[in-house]
Amino acid sequence: MLKPLQIGLIGFGTVGSATYQLLKRNQHQIQRRLGRALQIRMVADLDTEKVKAVVDADCAVVSDASQIISSDDIDVVIELVGGYGFALDVVSKALETGKHVVTANKALLATHGEKIFQLARKNTCMVGFESSVAGGIPIIKVVREGLSANHIEWIAGIINGTTNFILTQMHEKSWTFAQALEQAQALGYAEADPTFDIEGVDAAHKCSLLAAIAYGIPIPFDQAHIEGISQLQSKDMQFAAQLGYRIKLLGIAKRTQQGVEVRVHPCLISERSLIANVEGAMNAVMVHSDALGTSMYYGKGAGGEPTASAVIADLVDIARTVSTDVTHRVPHLAFQTESIDSPNMLTIEEVITCNYLRIAVADQSGVLASITSILAEHGISVDAMLQQPADTTSKQTELIILTHEAKEGVMNQAMAKIQKLPTVLMPVVRIRKEDFN
Amino acid sequence: MLKPLQIGLIGFGTVGSATYQLLKRNQHQIQRRLGRALQIRMVADLDTEKVKAVVDADCAVVSDASQIISSDDIDVVIELVGGYGFALDVVSKALETGKHVVTANKALLATHGEKIFQLARKNTCMVGFESSVAGGIPIIKVVREGLSANHIEWIAGIINGTTNFILTQMHEKSWTFAQALEQAQALGYAEADPTFDIEGVDAAHKCSLLAAIAYGIPIPFDQAHIEGISQLQSKDMQFAAQLGYRIKLLGIAKRTQQGVEVRVHPCLISERSLIANVEGAMNAVMVHSDALGTSMYYGKGAGGEPTASAVIADLVDIARTVSTDVTHRVPHLAFQTESIDSPNMLTIEEVITCNYLRIAVADQSGVLASITSILAEHGISVDAMLQQPADTTSKQTELIILTHEAKEGVMNQAMAKIQKLPTVLMPVVRIRKEDFN
Repeated sequence: MLKPLQIGLIGFGTVGSATYQLLKRNQHQIQRRLGRALQIRMVADLDTEKVKAVVDADCAVVSDASQIISSDDIDVVIELVGGYGFALDVVSKALETGKHVVTANKALLATHGEKIFQLARKNTCMVGFESSVAGGIPIIKVVREGLSANHIEWIAGIINGTTNFILTQMHEKSWTFAQALEQAQALGYAEADPTFDIEGVDAAHKCSLLAAIAYGIPIPFDQAHIEGISQLQSKDMQFAAQLGYRIKLLGIAKRTQQGVEVRVHPCLISERSLIANVEGAMNAVMVHSDALGTSMYYGKGAGGEPTASAVIADLVDIARTVSTDVTHRVPHLAFQTESIDSPNMLTIEEVITCNYLRIAVADQSGVLASITSILAEHGISVDAMLQQPADTTSKQTELIILTHEAKEGVMNQAMAKIQKLPTVLMPVVRIRKEDFN
Repeated sequence: MLKPLQIGLIGFGTVGSATYQLLKRNQHQIQRRLGRALQIRMVADLDTEKVKAVVDADCAVVSDASQIISSDDIDVVIELVGGYGFALDVVSKALETGKHVVTANKALLATHGEKIFQLARKNTCMVGFESSVAGGIPIIKVVREGLSANHIEWIAGIINGTTNFILTQMHEKSWTFAQALEQAQALGYAEADPTFDIEGVDAAHKCSLLAAIAYGIPIPFDQAHIEGISQLQSKDMQFAAQLGYRIKLLGIAKRTQQGVEVRVHPCLISERSLIANVEGAMNAVMVHSDALGTSMYYGKGAGGEPTASAVIADLVDIARTVSTDVTHRVPHLAFQTESIDSPNMLTIEEVITCNYLRIAVADQSGVLASITSILAEHGISVDAMLQQPADTTSKQTELIILTHEAKEGVMNQAMAKIQKLPTVLMPVVRIRKEDFN
C-alpha cells in the first residue's frame, strides 16, 4: 500500500471545513479508487479554536501558515484563503519549497497565474485549480483532457451563481435588480459587498482561465470586456421573454479568423436553448468544438461540498501524477509552454453580435422610419420588433428592436446617431444577443 | 521531442475514418497539448481500396488485422470493428502482445469486460473506452476522475440517440412508433435492424459500464432490467404531456441501502427538468452524488467525429500515462481491483418507482372506486389522475393514474388485481416515473 498523500490546508472557511469533512466522510470511497489515502496533516487558520472543534486529534492546527510551508512532511498545500496578497505569498512559497498546490482562487490565478504556473514548472510542481471555475463541475478536466482532440471554437457559460440567482428572481417575480439582490443577500447567495459578482469580475476571472485552456494563450483577464447586471431592468427581461428570449450573464470566449474575444455581459439567449433554463444559483458551461459540436456541463458552481468535491478531485489527480515525469503531465494551461500562442485579441468594438435595443421615443409619426433608416445606413438589419402601446399621458412609447449580427463599433455609431434624434427621449438600452448556432 | 505514439486502427467505417481524418486535421492542435504526435501507422479493413482512398502514403493499409497485432512498431490498437467475436479476438491478442487498446465497443465491454480488463492488468496495458458511452461526451472521465471525491447515488441518462430521436418525433409530431422509426431509418439515425437500439440493449450496455465505474462493482449487464420503446404509444406521450411530463428512454443505475439497481426503460420525467428537454439524437447523463449534488453532461452521443473525439482523447491519455507505474494509473473501472464490491443487486420487482398507469375501462359508475381501492389495499397512493371523455359509441374511456412511490412487485400485484376487474377492458399500460429529487 502506498503511503498517504500528506496535505496542509490553509484557510478553514466554508470550503476549507467542507474539504476536511468530505475527505473524512468519503475517505474509504476515495481510497477504493486511488489505492492510497489522502491525509490532511495540518490546518492553518487564524481562528484555531474553530478548527479544533472540527478536526481530529491527528491533525495539527496552527495559526501561522508558514508552519505548513516549512514542514517537510507536507506534499500538497491547499490554498483556500482567497484574495491576492497573502494567497499569492503562500502559494509562491509552497511552490518554492517543492510542494504541489490546490487552489480555488480564480482571482489569484486570473491575475497572477502566469507567474504562479512558471514557478510551478521551475519546481516541477503541479497546481490544481478545478475548483476555481464552476465549483464542482469538472469543467477544467473536460476542456483540458476530455476535448483534447478538438479545436474549441467558443465557450459560453453561466459561471457566477449569485448573478444567475438574481436574474432568475427578476425573471420569475418581475423584481427589480435591487429587490433580487436584497433577497440573494438574505439567503446567503450574495456577499455583503457583492461588487465582484454583480459587476461580472468574478465571471471574467473564470472566463479568462477557460479561454487560456481552450486556446493555449496567456490568461487574458486584462483584455476581457466586463459588464455586470446592476444596470439591468426587469422590463428588459419581460420584453425579451415576449420575444422568446431569456437574459443571462454569460462569460464568453470565442476564437474566430479575426482573433480571440473574451467578454462577460448580460446576453439574450433563446428560451428554447438548454442553457437558458439553467435557474437559480446553478452553473452551466457550453463548449462548441469542431469534432464534438456543442456540449454542455451543468451543476453547482459554488458552496462548501461542491467546491470541496473539485478540490479533492485535484488531490486525487496529483496523487496519481506525482511520480510521473513532468513531460507526461497535463500542462497547467492545457497546452505545452512552448506552444502558447499570442493571437490577436479583439476589443469589444471589433466583436460581432446580434443586439436587443430598447428605445424610448415620442409617440409621433416618422419615428420608426428615422430609426430604421439609421440602422440601414450602417448595414444593420432588423430581425424582430416590438412596439409597446403609447402611454396616453406622456405620449411616449418604447420600441424594442432585435438586430441581426453587427460589429459592435458600427452598432455604437448607429446608436449614437439614434440617440441624437429629437424624438428619442432616453438613453438607448442595448443588450447583446447570442444565437449559438 | 518525444517520439510519436504509434497506432494501429482496425475497422475503417464511419468512426474509423473520422478518427483518421480528425487526427490528421487537428494533429497540430493535439501536439500543442500533448507535446508529442499521435501517428496512425497502419489501418486494417477488409475493404483496403476504401481505406487507401483516404489515408496518406505513410500509413500502411492491410486487410488482415493480425498484421497490426504482430507489428512491433505499434503501441496502441484502436478497435472499431464492433460485435463480440472478431473484436474480442483482436482486443485479446493486442493485450497479450503488450499493446494498449482503445475501443468504442460497449457491447464487447459490457459482456466480456471483466476478462478484457483482467488481461489488460496482467499485461500492464490500458484499455480506453471513453467513446463507448455517450459518444463524444467525456462521461467516463467525469465519473472516474472528476467525481472521485463523491459517493455516487444515482446516474440517469439518455444514452441512446436513436431512441431519443424516435421519442422526440413521437412527441412533437404525434407520430406512431412505427412512423418515427421509419423516419429515423430514412435519416440514418436507426440501422436497418434497429433491435439493439429500440429494445434498450445498447443503452443497457452503456448503463452497465456506468454502474461499474460509479460503484466499483463487476459490470452488471446480466442483472440489468431492459425494456425498449417499441411498445410505446404516442397517446401515452400526449397524456404524459397533459400532466406535465415527457417520456424518455433512460438508463438508470442507483445505489440505495437495499442494493444496486440497473435498469433501462421508458420513463416519465417532469418537463421542467433539463434532461426532459434533451431532444433529437442528443445524449445527456445526469449524475447525483453526495458532495456535488446533481450535475449533467450533454452532447452528441454518436456519429463519426463526436465518437472520434473520444477515441483520440483516450489516445492522448494513454500517451501521457504509458510511462506511469501501474499503481498510479486510473483503474479501468475507476476502483482498485482489490476494492471491487459485490453488493446486493436488486431485481426489478424490488425497485421502487412512481408509476403512470393507463387503464381502459367501461364508462360506468364505481369503476374508479374499485381501481383506487385496489391501489389503497396495496398501500399505493395516487399523485394525480386524468380521465378522458368517454367514447359515445364504445362506452369506453381511459383513466390515467400517476402513483406515488411503490415497490414494483407490489405494483405488479395491484395491477394484476385491477386487470381482473370486469370493467377493465384492455391490458393495463404501466410506465415508470422518476422524480430525481
